[in-house]
Amino acid sequence: MNIKRLEALLQGVKNDEINVEEAIEALQSLPFSDLEYAKIDHHRELRVGYPEVIYGGGKTDEQILGIVKHMMDHGSNILVTRCSESAAKSILDAVPKAHYNPLAHTVSVVHEATTQTESYIAIVAAGTSDLPVVEEAYETAKIMGNQVRKITDVGVAGIHRLFANLEAIRGAKVVIVVAGMEGALASVIGGLVDKPIIAVPTSVGYGANLGGVAALLSMLNSCASGVSVVNIDNGYGAAYSASMINHL
Amino acid sequence: MNIKRLEALLQGVKNDEINVEEAIEALQSLPFSDLEYAKIDHHRELRVGYPEVIYGGGKTDEQILGIVKHMMDHGSNILVTRCSESAAKSILDAVPKAHYNPLAHTVSVVHEATTQTESYIAIVAAGTSDLPVVEEAYETAKIMGNQVRKITDVGVAGIHRLFANLEAIRGAKVVIVVAGMEGALASVIGGLVDKPIIAVPTSVGYGANLGGVAALLSMLNSCASGVSVVNIDNGYGAAYSASMINHL
Amino acid sequence: MNIKRLEALLQGVKNDEINVEEAIEALQSLPFSDLEYAKIDHHRELRVGYPEVIYGGGKTDEQILGIVKHMMDHGSNILVTRCSESAAKSILDAVPKAHYNPLAHTVSVVHEATTQTESYIAIVAAGTSDLPVVEEAYETAKIMGNQVRKITDVGVAGIHRLFANLEAIRGAKVVIVVAGMEGALASVIGGLVDKPIIAVPTSVGYGANLGGVAALLSMLNSCASGVSVVNIDNGYGAAYSASMINHL
Amino acid sequence: MNIKRLEALLQGVKNDEINVEEAIEALQSLPFSDLEYAKIDHHRELRVGYPEVIYGGGKTDEQILGIVKHMMDHGSNILVTRCSESAAKSILDAVPKAHYNPLAHTVSVVHEATTQTESYIAIVAAGTSDLPVVEEAYETAKIMGNQVRKITDVGVAGIHRLFANLEAIRGAKVVIVVAGMEGALASVIGGLVDKPIIAVPTSVGYGANLGGVAALLSMLNSCASGVSVVNIDNGYGAAYSASMINHL
Amino acid sequence: MNIKRLEALLQGVKNDEINVEEAIEALQSLPFSDLEYAKIDHHRELRVGYPEVIYGGGKTDEQILGIVKHMMDHGSNILVTRCSESAAKSILDAVPKAHYNPLAHTVSVVHEATTQTESYIAIVAAGTSDLPVVEEAYETAKIMGNQVRKITDVGVAGIHRLFANLEAIRGAKVVIVVAGMEGALASVIGGLVDKPIIAVPTSVGYGANLGGVAALLSMLNSCASGVSVVNIDNGYGAAYSASMINHL
Amino acid sequence: MNIKRLEALLQGVKNDEINVEEAIEALQSLPFSDLEYAKIDHHRELRVGYPEVIYGGGKTDEQILGIVKHMMDHGSNILVTRCSESAAKSILDAVPKAHYNPLAHTVSVVHEATTQTESYIAIVAAGTSDLPVVEEAYETAKIMGNQVRKITDVGVAGIHRLFANLEAIRGAKVVIVVAGMEGALASVIGGLVDKPIIAVPTSVGYGANLGGVAALLSMLNSCASGVSVVNIDNGYGAAYSASMINHL
Amino acid sequence: MNIKRLEALLQGVKNDEINVEEAIEALQSLPFSDLEYAKIDHHRELRVGYPEVIYGGGKTDEQILGIVKHMMDHGSNILVTRCSESAAKSILDAVPKAHYNPLAHTVSVVHEATTQTESYIAIVAAGTSDLPVVEEAYETAKIMGNQVRKITDVGVAGIHRLFANLEAIRGAKVVIVVAGMEGALASVIGGLVDKPIIAVPTSVGYGANLGGVAALLSMLNSCASGVSVVNIDNGYGAAYSASMINHL
Amino acid sequence: MNIKRLEALLQGVKNDEINVEEAIEALQSLPFSDLEYAKIDHHRELRVGYPEVIYGGGKTDEQILGIVKHMMDHGSNILVTRCSESAAKSILDAVPKAHYNPLAHTVSVVHEATTQTESYIAIVAAGTSDLPVVEEAYETAKIMGNQVRKITDVGVAGIHRLFANLEAIRGAKVVIVVAGMEGALASVIGGLVDKPIIAVPTSVGYGANLGGVAALLSMLNSCASGVSVVNIDNGYGAAYSASMINHL
Repeated sequence: MNIKRLEALLQGVKNDEINVEEAIEALQSLPFSDLEYAKIDHHRELRVGYPEVIYGGGKTDEQILGIVKHMMDHGSNILVTRCSESAAKSILDAVPKAHYNPLAHTVSVVHEATTQTESYIAIVAAGTSDLPVVEEAYETAKIMGNQVRKITDVGVAGIHRLFANLEAIRGAKVVIVVAGMEGALASVIGGLVDKPIIAVPTSVGYGANLGGVAALLSMLNSCASGVSVVNIDNGYGAAYSASMINHL
Repeated sequence: MNIKRLEALLQGVKNDEINVEEAIEALQSLPFSDLEYAKIDHHRELRVGYPEVIYGGGKTDEQILGIVKHMMDHGSNILVTRCSESAAKSILDAVPKAHYNPLAHTVSVVHEATTQTESYIAIVAAGTSDLPVVEEAYETAKIMGNQVRKITDVGVAGIHRLFANLEAIRGAKVVIVVAGMEGALASVIGGLVDKPIIAVPTSVGYGANLGGVAALLSMLNSCASGVSVVNIDNGYGAAYSASMINHL
Repeated sequence: MNIKRLEALLQGVKNDEINVEEAIEALQSLPFSDLEYAKIDHHRELRVGYPEVIYGGGKTDEQILGIVKHMMDHGSNILVTRCSESAAKSILDAVPKAHYNPLAHTVSVVHEATTQTESYIAIVAAGTSDLPVVEEAYETAKIMGNQVRKITDVGVAGIHRLFANLEAIRGAKVVIVVAGMEGALASVIGGLVDKPIIAVPTSVGYGANLGGVAALLSMLNSCASGVSVVNIDNGYGAAYSASMINHL
Repeated sequence: MNIKRLEALLQGVKNDEINVEEAIEALQSLPFSDLEYAKIDHHRELRVGYPEVIYGGGKTDEQILGIVKHMMDHGSNILVTRCSESAAKSILDAVPKAHYNPLAHTVSVVHEATTQTESYIAIVAAGTSDLPVVEEAYETAKIMGNQVRKITDVGVAGIHRLFANLEAIRGAKVVIVVAGMEGALASVIGGLVDKPIIAVPTSVGYGANLGGVAALLSMLNSCASGVSVVNIDNGYGAAYSASMINHL
Repeated sequence: MNIKRLEALLQGVKNDEINVEEAIEALQSLPFSDLEYAKIDHHRELRVGYPEVIYGGGKTDEQILGIVKHMMDHGSNILVTRCSESAAKSILDAVPKAHYNPLAHTVSVVHEATTQTESYIAIVAAGTSDLPVVEEAYETAKIMGNQVRKITDVGVAGIHRLFANLEAIRGAKVVIVVAGMEGALASVIGGLVDKPIIAVPTSVGYGANLGGVAALLSMLNSCASGVSVVNIDNGYGAAYSASMINHL
Repeated sequence: MNIKRLEALLQGVKNDEINVEEAIEALQSLPFSDLEYAKIDHHRELRVGYPEVIYGGGKTDEQILGIVKHMMDHGSNILVTRCSESAAKSILDAVPKAHYNPLAHTVSVVHEATTQTESYIAIVAAGTSDLPVVEEAYETAKIMGNQVRKITDVGVAGIHRLFANLEAIRGAKVVIVVAGMEGALASVIGGLVDKPIIAVPTSVGYGANLGGVAALLSMLNSCASGVSVVNIDNGYGAAYSASMINHL
Repeated sequence: MNIKRLEALLQGVKNDEINVEEAIEALQSLPFSDLEYAKIDHHRELRVGYPEVIYGGGKTDEQILGIVKHMMDHGSNILVTRCSESAAKSILDAVPKAHYNPLAHTVSVVHEATTQTESYIAIVAAGTSDLPVVEEAYETAKIMGNQVRKITDVGVAGIHRLFANLEAIRGAKVVIVVAGMEGALASVIGGLVDKPIIAVPTSVGYGANLGGVAALLSMLNSCASGVSVVNIDNGYGAAYSASMINHL
Repeated sequence: MNIKRLEALLQGVKNDEINVEEAIEALQSLPFSDLEYAKIDHHRELRVGYPEVIYGGGKTDEQILGIVKHMMDHGSNILVTRCSESAAKSILDAVPKAHYNPLAHTVSVVHEATTQTESYIAIVAAGTSDLPVVEEAYETAKIMGNQVRKITDVGVAGIHRLFANLEAIRGAKVVIVVAGMEGALASVIGGLVDKPIIAVPTSVGYGANLGGVAALLSMLNSCASGVSVVNIDNGYGAAYSASMINHL
């Protein structure tokens, strides 16, 4: 398309339909407004249902609502993460079809349902305190058109619970592992499952947990191969990477 | 298969071909010696050519050579990482078809060439000082049967070099980004490429680089989505994850 | 017992009392639902009165109450740690025999009193600000059936107070040492007492105390032998380990 | 002038208009009250409009207002940074021509407008969450007599936005780069622009961002030359340095 | 005995066999030279065979040899930890019955074999690189009169190896878990075994392992109860604590 | 006195006024209840007016008031540090002669005025935000009987202010330097003054100040000799050390 | 020029001298190979004599020599930093006019002397141990065409030395401050001098200096305005920024 | 004296013996070349025998020898710290009366013996590995004219050794406590002794000792009052502060 537009422009110059000054002006802005990656951004949404994502952290309710409204005009699917309860309410008032997940702190607006993948992402979590991160990952993965299975409360302190769910985990195309405290679950699953694993350390724990740094270091040093890691509590980022892999 | 073996065993008991004591002995070891994951380990190698991997760090030359010789009998492909020059020499003396990559500090032994993937992994690196990590990733990816393209010295200080190589990066199925210092390359590629990215921070740099921690934190905090991270200088781990994805 | 059940099952197959399909189904779930450790979990409670423990941190009052009620049906002894005042109140309303320790932030429900050990655990603390951790350890140790002696406010700044209580400390089978600030008490007791010591660093202090990290590092580097360490402020964990030792 | 005053004093002694005791007294205080740097302090304000700056952090509303009123008598331009909303209100009540920027948390009072520089400072920011720091830098730069251009929301996750604004950045005499998360923007601009860059890491982000330390380390390790760094969230400090350079 | 000596002294005063001045002198030194803990030190050795321990780190060969020779006169069993190869040789030359364990970096001298416990300590290790720490723990435990079983190379990356050794681990009275990298093994065993666990983080690993800090934090944050922790690579300290418990 | 009591006891035994059993009992408790240091504690108060000090942090208002009342009976001078406003009010209600310093967060009760030293302690501070720490040091030093001079707002950013106060600083017997941010004031005074300096880092500052750690490290690394350091914000500790020196 | 080339191209298409396919090909590569910044790179060297810089750290002698030789053909001025003695010798053998500064660990090759600035950069250092960093900054500044004055050994421990050199520092257009230990020199000069200051923390010091981190934090928290900071020991980076400012 | 010189100068002006230009010149240099602190520096040496101190770390043997020779001409007493063996030898060859302490890594040259104080400094150390720091403190204290008593190997693991030496410690005017590992000795002595304590953390230990940081934090958080701290391994700094106090 880029080449087509370029060809049309040059043909216009050749045919004296477009004069040289106009062509220069058009070409000067070309590298930035029409680069390949801009198109890819567009392609991306069409193909895999990538939503427009608003990070709500540090934004006022008004700002969030304003951005959502502006996006409504483009007809994009929308995902707001780290959305406060009051911001969520103001969106729900303005956009009746918006969906609020209070545990995930997300609001999503789906204009046209994206085709679901046949393969699924497994989101596996160690404890119930990790659920907000699980839910953020879940909402992200869903709006990006993925089938998802959640398997929670299977921490290594009671490893038989993990074994009882091993088939469901192995059946996934990519696995997200969410764990706080010492984050050992990532290594254990890494040793049992032959799939790419995206590990999310959570800030669950206290004392020498250091706000999730203990779990983060643990996951980065996993003795099992096939584990890569995202930021602490970053359920959104894990689901984004997993969705990219699941759509391959 | 597991179920078939179990059925055969029970049928043998039913038919008095196997006595109860023998069946008990067989069943007691079942959960551990014959679990699904054990078989998967086996499947894994056949399907994607996963080699047996020896981490050479902290092992003596004799130990490394001993393990290599033992593995030669199983006919597995072998990869030794973090292999000292002297250990490499002793392997080359004993195993003529071994291949030593001095920059990667790896030795590989290929018994039967694994089928190469049609899609490829792009390994992108910021500077020439990152090459040892690039080469470790390269050797790992190759022996696991991946097509690989290396694109090096494209750090963000001269971002036009990166743009000149963008098509090759975008053509990959999965991208490994290797960078030290501030590790900004991962974020920049994350913003330009619609593929899963495995980022490897390197210990290249000095002062407040803190042995790679600066690049590690930078990559974990990437403002671009789709970036997950492995341990500092862990080219092997990045390639392992990338190979899993590339074989999907 | 495990072997007995297995033998009975196989004998049933042999005698055609159990058909092969049923036996397969039973055996498939065996590794997970009936493994040795599952039974141990059960044994554990009977023998030493291990309660069901609910970590209240990060749970809503409703969730905590719900779990407590569910456990009431099993007749287990129950311990809730890190329990907020409001959650405690809602439990006390619903379960009259529940006991709330506001300093420890614990609620305990004892259905049948566990036999007390003859030997005792000494819980020794440096200052009055460490009392919440002392009380959490105390409540944990009590519900697990241990005799306990608390010796508090014996920090090394006035070491004669420690000496005046030395006999009581030496008489214990295992000693828990709770201290914040520089945590020197663990080393001093380690040099005076010939018993296993579980040290608990607390977050008491300010400035370069770094939320308990100073005491933690201090205890890990104890120049006296026989000291092992649990997480900052983790009175529960210390008492759990100590109870295991005290029941030997 | 210093020398002139000294000469007058000595001439007075010589001519017996000033006695020796008076001269000793005057000279004893000379080194401190009339040193070269004291005059420079005065010169500074006249030439570039340096305001008196009050750091409002950790001061009560009364203290801030008191200092502002005291300064009003000297006729200095005044800048209050880290000013709470209530402190701002009390100033606005007392000083009608005061200007409050709620996003920047600054109050400024301009008695006589300082001459604006012809060259300008570009303040470039990665995201909308960085705006408070941008505004603090902006208010500081303005009251010090600089022309300023703000270019915001050009983070590297969508690098085409940065390219679209490159000419405005390159046209500046000095560039302030404000970014949180991984702070990669500083390196990227450092590679594209031939001007001194003052980088301000912000505490925007979460988890392994560590309150801005990730961005700080990233900027200190910039692979591009020409980047120097100020403290986390220190928009004031960046603008002060930039103003010094812009007035050269 | 203390009381007996005191009684004799006072009886002597009463009977005028000892005058008051002599008694005062004797009593003044009493608190320090003859306190209860001094005797305990003595008792300790007799009962459980506690050796005299020399920490060889930072001592010259001559110093170590000198201390060993001096101790030989007391007939104590001796353990030298962190002993260099050259120091070991000089001891072996001087003390023929000394035993050198080059992997453990220990030298031990046993004058009279201590009675072995009937119960045993299990030393469980994740990988072969952890062996030096395992051996230091082993030598310490042995000279203190413990039966010991070593179970190595059972890291969680291949968890079936751990399960295959579970009975041996469960049979111990106390378990030492040695692991580097992410140290997940401690949590997994903590979830499977109903015995006190002493966890030893090792400095095995690289990058974000931070010299063993990753494993240390991981073990301190274990989601399984019953785990207490000693310093990085401190096999000696773990065995000392374990021996205390095993002798109960 | 200790010896006198001992002599009396022995003389009693000799004269058959005290029987041996009673003497043994008395002597057994001697080492701990009547050691030299106990008497020193008493001496200390008499000689230098050391107050009883209550650390109010983490104590309830009731607890603080209770301890104060209990101490009133002993007639000791009392100092409460880190005292909340409400706790202070409850003390002032109960003890009319109590003195509350709201900036210092201290309450002091003086029963008998201690003799003031002739030499004085200089408390020098960088900025007005450091005043709470200055005041805590001041109140501590005063109640311990020291003459004190406060010299504040002499930070190195305007070094002429420091020079103008140099004589007052040099006249002190010992100098307390209080500074946040980069804490450079300690080094500068260390280079100008020939007196022992106790440096107190404060948590004043933001960003990479890390809660006072920047100033702490700075002071520990002072290029000027004669500087020793106490914990962050620890005005009490600095004054205690300084008072010891000032009373020599 | 860019526009001129574009105009010529379009004019060629218009005049049928260039066909559309050729024009498309030319325009496609335009954004990357001929962007404005590429030309700037070229301009930069011509105008201010920016050399080609080779970071020698982590490169073999052969690699460094190879790059130098290759650059010799372009006639660029060359600077090698972090150059080992042996690498320096091999360059000096091959390039007679190369200049080696062993203290700075730099080699420079000047083909045509760059015009020196009239204004000068002052490089001020605290101690003699900081000289390697001073020299690296000096060599960098010189080859970039700056007049430079070095003022060393003026640390704050003997502040009169600094005052004696104040005029020389004030006369500079921009000041580089090099200091290790507590880095207080940056703040003190910041309070005395009205010029932009680039501060370089050095790794000089020991213990809690933490390899330069103490000085780094100190400088970032400078209470004096106008100070920005580069990485630890980064004399090159400081001089690069200073040269940009000095050439304004 | 300063005032006398000033008076003479002005009197000369008044009497026309000195013309105004000469007086101006003299007065301009006055603030820097003749400030009070310069004289104090001189006084200091005369009164307490303060030597000239050379920090040998990071200096070549030639540089150290050169400085020593230069100082020999001034007749000052000289102390070289952190002096390598080879540098020591070259000094001993050139200066026969120099004294080398190989454990302390110091060389001292005493021209005229300084009067010893009647009071003494006690240097108390936990273990034999702390001896190098003890010796550095000892050599520093001796050359500054202090009586010193060394009390070593009295760590808290065997606290009776400390008690046996308590009188000697209590008899000192100021106490230096040297300890590595967890540094508890400082707190314990702080609780037993009524004298100012200068604590020196040492880098003795391993693992989570973090190069002395554990002991440093421990000492800063001492629960006993009267303890101030110097940098890790800084025996020189501790002795310098202690000498200042001992000479009061």
